Amino acid sequence: MTVQVGVIGTGMIGQEHIRRLTDTVAGARVSTVSDVDTERAKEVASGVDARAVDTGQEVIDDPAVDAVLVTSWGPTHAEYVLAAIEAGKYVFCEKPLATTAEDCRRIVDAEMARGRRLVQVGFMRRYDPGYRAMKDAIDSGSIGAALLMHCAHRNATVPETYHSEMATHDTAIHEIDTVRWLLNEEIRSAQVLKPRTTSLRFEHLQDPQILLFETAGGVRVDVEVFVNCQYGYDIRCETVGERGTLTLPDPHQVVLRSDSQVRTHVHQHWKTRFAEAFDVEFQEWVGSVLDDEIAGPSSWDGYAAAVTADATVQALHSGRVVDVPLPERPAFYA
Amino acid sequence: MTVQVGVIGTGMIGQEHIRRLTDTVAGARVSTVSDVDTERAKEVASGVDARAVDTGQEVIDDPAVDAVLVTSWGPTHAEYVLAAIEAGKYVFCEKPLATTAEDCRRIVDAEMARGRRLVQVGFMRRYDPGYRAMKDAIDSGSIGAALLMHCAHRNATVPETYHSEMATHDTAIHEIDTVRWLLNEEIRSAQVLKPRTTSLRFEHLQDPQILLFETAGGVRVDVEVFVNCQYGYDIRCETVGERGTLTLPDPHQVVLRSDSQVRTHVHQHWKTRFAEAFDVEFQEWVGSVLDDEIAGPSSWDGYAAAVTADATVQALHSGRVVDVPLPERPAFYA
Amino acid sequence: MTVQVGVIGTGMIGQEHIRRLTDTVAGARVSTVSDVDTERAKEVASGVDARAVDTGQEVIDDPAVDAVLVTSWGPTHAEYVLAAIEAGKYVFCEKPLATTAEDCRRIVDAEMARGRRLVQVGFMRRYDPGYRAMKDAIDSGSIGAALLMHCAHRNATVPETYHSEMATHDTAIHEIDTVRWLLNEEIRSAQVLKPRTTSLRFEHLQDPQILLFETAGGVRVDVEVFVNCQYGYDIRCETVGERGTLTLPDPHQVVLRSDSQVRTHVHQHWKTRFAEAFDVEFQEWVGSVLDDEIAGPSSWDGYAAAVTADATVQALHSGRVVDVPLPERPAFYA
Amino acid sequence: MTVQVGVIGTGMIGQEHIRRLTDTVAGARVSTVSDVDTERAKEVASGVDARAVDTGQEVIDDPAVDAVLVTSWGPTHAEYVLAAIEAGKYVFCEKPLATTAEDCRRIVDAEMARGRRLVQVGFMRRYDPGYRAMKDAIDSGSIGAALLMHCAHRNATVPETYHSEMATHDTAIHEIDTVRWLLNEEIRSAQVLKPRTTSLRFEHLQDPQILLFETAGGVRVDVEVFVNCQYGYDIRCETVGERGTLTLPDPHQVVLRSDSQVRTHVHQHWKTRFAEAFDVEFQEWVGSVLDDEIAGPSSWDGYAAAVTADATVQALHSGRVVDVPLPERPAFYA
Repeated sequence: MTVQVGVIGTGMIGQEHIRRLTDTVAGARVSTVSDVDTERAKEVASGVDARAVDTGQEVIDDPAVDAVLVTSWGPTHAEYVLAAIEAGKYVFCEKPLATTAEDCRRIVDAEMARGRRLVQVGFMRRYDPGYRAMKDAIDSGSIGAALLMHCAHRNATVPETYHSEMATHDTAIHEIDTVRWLLNEEIRSAQVLKPRTTSLRFEHLQDPQILLFETAGGVRVDVEVFVNCQYGYDIRCETVGERGTLTLPDPHQVVLRSDSQVRTHVHQHWKTRFAEAFDVEFQEWVGSVLDDEIAGPSSWDGYAAAVTADATVQALHSGRVVDVPLPERPAFYA
Repeated sequence: MTVQVGVIGTGMIGQEHIRRLTDTVAGARVSTVSDVDTERAKEVASGVDARAVDTGQEVIDDPAVDAVLVTSWGPTHAEYVLAAIEAGKYVFCEKPLATTAEDCRRIVDAEMARGRRLVQVGFMRRYDPGYRAMKDAIDSGSIGAALLMHCAHRNATVPETYHSEMATHDTAIHEIDTVRWLLNEEIRSAQVLKPRTTSLRFEHLQDPQILLFETAGGVRVDVEVFVNCQYGYDIRCETVGERGTLTLPDPHQVVLRSDSQVRTHVHQHWKTRFAEAFDVEFQEWVGSVLDDEIAGPSSWDGYAAAVTADATVQALHSGRVVDVPLPERPAFYA
Repeated sequence: MTVQVGVIGTGMIGQEHIRRLTDTVAGARVSTVSDVDTERAKEVASGVDARAVDTGQEVIDDPAVDAVLVTSWGPTHAEYVLAAIEAGKYVFCEKPLATTAEDCRRIVDAEMARGRRLVQVGFMRRYDPGYRAMKDAIDSGSIGAALLMHCAHRNATVPETYHSEMATHDTAIHEIDTVRWLLNEEIRSAQVLKPRTTSLRFEHLQDPQILLFETAGGVRVDVEVFVNCQYGYDIRCETVGERGTLTLPDPHQVVLRSDSQVRTHVHQHWKTRFAEAFDVEFQEWVGSVLDDEIAGPSSWDGYAAAVTADATVQALHSGRVVDVPLPERPAFYA
Repeated sequence: MTVQVGVIGTGMIGQEHIRRLTDTVAGARVSTVSDVDTERAKEVASGVDARAVDTGQEVIDDPAVDAVLVTSWGPTHAEYVLAAIEAGKYVFCEKPLATTAEDCRRIVDAEMARGRRLVQVGFMRRYDPGYRAMKDAIDSGSIGAALLMHCAHRNATVPETYHSEMATHDTAIHEIDTVRWLLNEEIRSAQVLKPRTTSLRFEHLQDPQILLFETAGGVRVDVEVFVNCQYGYDIRCETVGERGTLTLPDPHQVVLRSDSQVRTHVHQHWKTRFAEAFDVEFQEWVGSVLDDEIAGPSSWDGYAAAVTADATVQALHSGRVVDVPLPERPAFYA
């Protein structure tokens, strides 16, 4: 059996995932695509023997589409995800689930009204072998109860359009999800520290930032976000428990000894750093569509991340500790 | 387009690859299977919606089969590979290509007579990200001309049926291929050292062994083969060049600090150590079948490995340096 | 030439340093010792051919004493250091320089009045090869301007007498000095986060704690203090700059592969972790006494650490960001 | 008590050790020195308040000399060591103990005739913390019985005067001692492999070489000697046992992330790589002189290394396995 996937949005990340679904993932094919740039949609479609249609709604409505992949411009996500739920179709939405917490909430409500899980959000780190091993080790009790987490999220550079709120909404959103998932608790408050900024930055940008979270259970988390660190794309995470700590390994790289140094290469982009995670993410999603049982990051996870991110941005602007106004998680998402 | 794969042999490794072709690799499905144990073949076939037939020849002859995967008992490999060539079908043969160098040679000759590459041999290390990075780094000149290689191939344990010649034929065969591939030269002589054996061994077994190779270009290679090392499945490789060295990284694993130690886990089996390599190997093979251009390890590689292994086993028994009687590589395999 | 050292205080750390001055450091001998426990003083003295006297003042006054080492109970430090300055003798004072910032200030004033540096404080990390290499690399510009520091200070366990303020005064005092020294700036504010505490703690103890510092130049520093982490004595430090980061290496330890794991040992005590640092510290101190030019951590460093620690403890109790009321550094200590 | 050391030979290594005995080692001073270059001897002497005399014999005869350090030209070692034994004085001889096995044997015999250990040979690796931890771990049974050792000894470059025999006599002599000490057995045979040589070498030089040893107990040892490896001074050692392996750690170095790489520095010279080992070596020697009980590498160790090295050089020239004609170790050296 093959899952026929309809893809809304054929930009950079859309093309990446279309290639993945076509060349790397078993049990799936891309049947239908759309893009605001219809010429681009046609071109991409022809490369994978798919049909190009004019609108996202047509993708969703296409009877040849078993499941929808939303990789369009962020502000359009909510509309398409809601339409897919309306159509009763599985939908994988790249992060963010929606650009406002309210829209995320509407998706959560629509899905609950529909009565079963249809939506998966693209938090790919849950599929990275290193993070998975950390999750397994925490769950197995190897370090006792978690007390602290130290994280860093570094990008070599970002374009000038990047602004200070994006450090949370676009970048640390991954850490927000990772912390919730690894610890299996919600974040209840956020604070942001503003270090001296890099002189290699843009004037308007607070870079780096230190985000400080406290979870419902009292675990303290510090997240360095540094998006112009120059040297590479580098993700760090240590969880400290009562009896020990767990550290995410550096990606393994061949070790070069030369010119009086021992050297390994640092990834320069999340596409390569998390290539394996993306592959596993889509393979498992296709499997869960075939099994009729979605198990990955849920609408609730997308909503909780959005509410937490909003509070974090408030904390950035206010300089104060801000509570995360997240309601109780519905049993539906337990 | 989907490649329909016929699988001859549904034992442990056959089932592993059938699962891989079904659940992990894009663009392929298993259409037909056979096994000497026909009941097992039926059972495996039913699990993946394939047809079970009585013989390997029937698999090859099945019009629904685009490409053949040979994972049967070693002594039957040559027969099936030759039949597939005869039928003009692509064939992926798990190592060994054949159990004698003569049979490997017959395959090489049959393929050349047929006029194009049909055969790929299952030397999966060429698809491991660590080895690939080492190959790229050597080829890019980062260490200058290679002079030495230090390798180790360790298994936690082997069953009592394992005998001393298998250290070469079953185990170090991978290093033989890896050395040839990384250095892009043939091995011209072999010597075997017999260290004190482990007291945890079987009486009949020389374990560990040190294999010493010299390549056509004068590179010296030492390979520790230790198949009852107890602690895990551990593969090591360092290439030493005129200006530097390259070391295969340890597989990355979450780092646990607890109980007064810093600890990472060691793989216990080649199935997990090289899981990613196997996935990439089959994905690329399926791609090359679709592209009608086989690019992986060739019949010649299988033949050269067999001839080198025979010389190594002679060296084990004689205690002497033994020349590898490999003819010039035909232009066909350049 | 040999420096004759008089030692006030022959407890655990005093005996450790007496052994060091006798057996490991060139150019020194212990000539005179005292302790509140005069019997212990006599016993220790006889082991190294020194003279035991009744009081610290007698040690200082002894014409056979060229330089004084104060390793007595903390609350007595100020008295002895001031007396040594009064006597015009060099004095090495184990941390803390004094138990109140006021007393530290009196020492600073007395030393300035005396007109030359006589005092060195026992911040041994400045002599650790790893920290020194980090300092050199920062100073050489390898990472550009520093923006952030991430530190952790973990002890396996502490006795029940340890209370929450000691996390700063006894433990993080080393990080306070290290940060000031590495960055060559003062700390201007402190905040303390209180994570969920370890259930393996004592009821009265806030453990772990996260200390947050901001330097005069805007560098943000987070320090995890976790004194019952169970697994060992573990010191971590990363400095993040505009162009790169520097990480303190784990102490090098032989690597054991066994029982399906790769393992290294973690130090269990600061005495072994910083053994080399202590040796170098005293060797250089003896050299600077012989050269008549004290170069190590100064009275000012002791005073600044005390003022910073006081503000940090206030922050622990208030839950707020507390400014560090440190005056301008006198030119005398430039 | 202070040991008065007389130093014969004030060249580079002599001056290094004189500085060490003066500035770093407790309980010693250099009282008397000599050198074939009497002007240099005077200059060095004046720097440490020692007396310069005209000959090595005068150093030995000086009543102000408690113990002799021989750091003169290799061919003169035997004469001075024998004279020191004759005078009944402790003597530390930098390697080699003598330039011929016969002379080493004469020293052994003279020392046994004298009836007690007076001689220590400068095999400093036994004092390196990494090697010591490996020795302790082997002796504690952590890897079971040793079966194999893999070693590498790399220098960045050597001068043109270096010739192929020096790879054994000057360079691998350290591995010969290390293997004997770690395994507590003698080496019984040697073989040398000649890889393709580096094009950055001198014409006359076989570089690299692979030395293959077998111990009395059947442990197989491979030693890469590569003295123009360009990238640094790098020492590697792994001991493989029945239940696990032990690996010498890389020297710990601050870790720099910058310019898309993770980097640590490689030592460029044995003086820095083994600085700590040299310090500990001399500190313990001075201690053992004071205790009247020499415990470090003995005349026998120097003799055994010389005999083994001679056999290795024969193996280099003959291309064959050569037995090491070492007699039984006398009980005197048990």
